[in-house]
Amino acid sequence: MGDDVYVVGHKSPDTDTVVSAIVYAKIKGYTPVTQGAINEETAFVLDKFGVPVPGDLGGAEGKKLVLVDHNEASQAPDNIDKAEVVEIIDHHKMNFNYPDPIAIHVEPVGSTATILAKLYKDEVAKDKAMAGLLLGALLSDTVIFKSPTTTEEDKVVAAELAKIAGIDDIETFGIDVKKAKANISDKPIKDVVLADFKDFDFAGNKVGIGQTEVVDINDVYNRASEVMDFLNDLKGKEGYEMLIFVATDIIKEGSELYYAGDKAKMEKAFNTTIGDKSVWIDGLMSRKKQVVPVIDKTF
Amino acid sequence: MGDDVYVVGHKSPDTDTVVSAIVYAKIKGYTPVTQGAINEETAFVLDKFGVPVPGDLGGAEGKKLVLVDHNEASQAPDNIDKAEVVEIIDHHKMNFNYPDPIAIHVEPVGSTATILAKLYKDEVAKDKAMAGLLLGALLSDTVIFKSPTTTEEDKVVAAELAKIAGIDDIETFGIDVKKAKANISDKPIKDVVLADFKDFDFAGNKVGIGQTEVVDINDVYNRASEVMDFLNDLKGKEGYEMLIFVATDIIKEGSELYYAGDKAKMEKAFNTTIGDKSVWIDGLMSRKKQVVPVIDKTF
Repeated sequence: MGDDVYVVGHKSPDTDTVVSAIVYAKIKGYTPVTQGAINEETAFVLDKFGVPVPGDLGGAEGKKLVLVDHNEASQAPDNIDKAEVVEIIDHHKMNFNYPDPIAIHVEPVGSTATILAKLYKDEVAKDKAMAGLLLGALLSDTVIFKSPTTTEEDKVVAAELAKIAGIDDIETFGIDVKKAKANISDKPIKDVVLADFKDFDFAGNKVGIGQTEVVDINDVYNRASEVMDFLNDLKGKEGYEMLIFVATDIIKEGSELYYAGDKAKMEKAFNTTIGDKSVWIDGLMSRKKQVVPVIDKTF
Repeated sequence: MGDDVYVVGHKSPDTDTVVSAIVYAKIKGYTPVTQGAINEETAFVLDKFGVPVPGDLGGAEGKKLVLVDHNEASQAPDNIDKAEVVEIIDHHKMNFNYPDPIAIHVEPVGSTATILAKLYKDEVAKDKAMAGLLLGALLSDTVIFKSPTTTEEDKVVAAELAKIAGIDDIETFGIDVKKAKANISDKPIKDVVLADFKDFDFAGNKVGIGQTEVVDINDVYNRASEVMDFLNDLKGKEGYEMLIFVATDIIKEGSELYYAGDKAKMEKAFNTTIGDKSVWIDGLMSRKKQVVPVIDKTF
């Protein structure tokens, strides 16, 4: 018994989803799986505690599944309706419909790791690697307690996990984790700028805005000329009126703005003076709330 | 704080839904409410442990609600979309969609009372009335452990609750609870026969089949002539080819069948001989599975 139940997280797996699958599967004697390849941050956390990467679920058809860190069909495995869902553990909003009663545990905390650490306190206390994985997942999902989804419980749980895992400095460990994901030095600049990129129409003008999150803005400064070349090239090729690249430092809590387009418009939008090709704006973290509205207003 | 949160069960409240609202509200310092009037069974249980009947929710608009013993919108208060749902505790299948993450606890056990008794073991251990209410609700929802939804956990929890509540004989208490609901002696016979009544079309013949559940079939035997008069009267007035009233004894696990129509058809359908006006069929519990198919076949 047991090994025929698969614990699976959401599509585009992040550290909380992968770690939750690994930890819950270990506690229950189930099999942890992912939907697709894990990212660099998750690889860093698993490697640090010597835990192997779970296999891929493959097809969901006919399998018994525990869904962790998600519940909505859009994030669940394809053909989830041909699988048997036996349980859900999650911290997201609920959008779930299933014909039989099953065990469901949802708490509005910062990570699914937080919930597992609370529910299986005794098991986690005995397992240093498990505590380390959960701490990494918790710090990842709460952006080292900076995400507005963070609760007091997350901080309390993190302190307990750090003690078990033998991690003295939670902040430093969190930065190491985020750094692993945000490491842009090995990536083509195209992938860095376009990884999270959106097109907008401001009064008939085509404007593109990309964003990346890093833990050390110097990683971006070192590639500033590459960024500028890419933006100028793309502007000409694709007919953009303006292109902006928002490089956010999650530790310093601000962003360096790179752009291709009208300098006066940028200066007006952000009420600043742009000396060279880019400008640092302290406290700017959100494209949606702090970039799009002011650029829209300027056009 | 606290008292501005309302704990509410489903529409057409039963004992598990009302007791769950009362118990969870007491534990959390919230206000228990119902959707509509409670039934006789629930009144019996509350009265036995000296607990007052909760007030009615009234409108849901603008209120903070904890939903117990249900989650689907069809069973929730009207205008639930204009309320704030803060938590769900339930043992039913899930069909829920909400824009924010909230606390949700669902377990596939026999009653919501079982879940509350497990989650708040310490609080319940100190409160005799609370344990008694929960036991009544658990026995009601599991039909004294006879419902196929019953789990081993329900039985274990019931034994613990009985000890706290000072109830020596769980079975007898369960029968007292079911008896309170199934008490038909005060009701007009029309209400007894038609409370759960369905029309069928068998090969062009209009057939009506009603069912009631009692814990002592003598309550029905005592009113047999009333039942027969009502069936014969209704048959003539409404043009039924046949009328059947299934009086199920949940303790003896069988049913007395009363009918108005062709005796030969009834005898053939149930492969029996009907001496007088009615007949006892051992093991017959389900109209859907044990009456409708055989009558359909006969026509």
